Amino acid sequence: MNPSSPASQVKVLAFDVFGTVVDWHGSIVREVSSLGLSVDPVDFASAWRNGYRPAMARVRSGELPWTRIDDLHRMILDQVLLDFGITSLSEEQKRHLNLVWHRLAAWPDSVSGLTRLKRQFTIVTLSNGNLGLLADMAKNAGLPWDLILSAEVFRHYKPDPETYLGVGQTFDLPPEQTMLVASHKDDLAAAHALGLKTAFIERPAEFGPKKANPDLPRASWTTFHATDFNHLADQLGA
Amino acid sequence: MNPSSPASQVKVLAFDVFGTVVDWHGSIVREVSSLGLSVDPVDFASAWRNGYRPAMARVRSGELPWTRIDDLHRMILDQVLLDFGITSLSEEQKRHLNLVWHRLAAWPDSVSGLTRLKRQFTIVTLSNGNLGLLADMAKNAGLPWDLILSAEVFRHYKPDPETYLGVGQTFDLPPEQTMLVASHKDDLAAAHALGLKTAFIERPAEFGPKKANPDLPRASWTTFHATDFNHLADQLGA
Repeated sequence: MNPSSPASQVKVLAFDVFGTVVDWHGSIVREVSSLGLSVDPVDFASAWRNGYRPAMARVRSGELPWTRIDDLHRMILDQVLLDFGITSLSEEQKRHLNLVWHRLAAWPDSVSGLTRLKRQFTIVTLSNGNLGLLADMAKNAGLPWDLILSAEVFRHYKPDPETYLGVGQTFDLPPEQTMLVASHKDDLAAAHALGLKTAFIERPAEFGPKKANPDLPRASWTTFHATDFNHLADQLGA
Repeated sequence: MNPSSPASQVKVLAFDVFGTVVDWHGSIVREVSSLGLSVDPVDFASAWRNGYRPAMARVRSGELPWTRIDDLHRMILDQVLLDFGITSLSEEQKRHLNLVWHRLAAWPDSVSGLTRLKRQFTIVTLSNGNLGLLADMAKNAGLPWDLILSAEVFRHYKPDPETYLGVGQTFDLPPEQTMLVASHKDDLAAAHALGLKTAFIERPAEFGPKKANPDLPRASWTTFHATDFNHLADQLGA
């Protein structure tokens, strides 16, 4: 890489996971479809994910004590099942379905792109998913992380500053030597405001066939903009 | 594995790291030797390590606030340099030397044994080393962890119970479905008392040429006793 390039001092790439590395929508649609429930799996997946931010907001505000995503996902799932009028699932089936987030499939470029980036950078997660979830997912999907960092380590959910700044603190680096890689502009904007470098990844299918991804247009303030992880590796010379 | 074997329900293997997975003594001797200081590198390595438990005890007792191993290592190093009368190192050299713990070499069987065990179990660290140290070490030595767990995650140093119990809690498993793998009987005894399974690994050279390892004889209460990680994999059918 050119020593004057924007990433020449970057040592650690921190990846958002849900949507950026793995296809939550497609994975949940496939698993719900296989259950033979009388629901539209696309609507079901979207409803489950729509409960995610409000649930974390209750933790961030202090209304709920520290609660892991596994438990938040289960609270939301129970409500979604109620809303969709699904009463046929046993407790064991609900428990298993809730762990679909541990089994999400990677996007086709994720393993090859991460493997390239890992040669030149330390690659870590920075996800609101809990440690057990992220470790199961990595083992299942073959994601070659150098380190799994999670909101669970910092006891703060993104976009709390403790999470973004925690990446550099973990490696004794200033924020500008770390870069957040994500497919969501609000996540990147929070990191950018704290001095981290940013790389936007286009994931047009993240929200499924019924909802366009509004984040795709290039923003002037992101350090990099890439169609996928291999395209980012190309730009970083990895 | 036989379904009635002691490890048939174990899902997660948690590894002590310093001494069990990596050769701290030999690595430090080599690095100190290369500095050309007028000290016996074997004595220097032993003195540095001897400061480790007392330093952590100061954190565990509350005398010091939470302090990462990197910073404890530096406090001890400064004292050891004083004790050995070494005044020739620059601040940059001291900083670099302190990070030798990030560059420790794996024992010859570590990568091959862990790779076999990883096929059948989730393999994690359970180390007093901080996250950045353990991630650098894994990247440098090629250690294929599924997850790096550290005292830094639990904000408690071993042998505090929060660390051993934290392994199962991370994966939503009872203690008896987790196993500590270590070359130190006091570490294993603390885990055993809390219901974890235990595997002792013989590391006769851990303390260098001047000090025999007193822990080598087989204890009746450990679940497994192995000469190295491949021998443990043999016993576990991995």
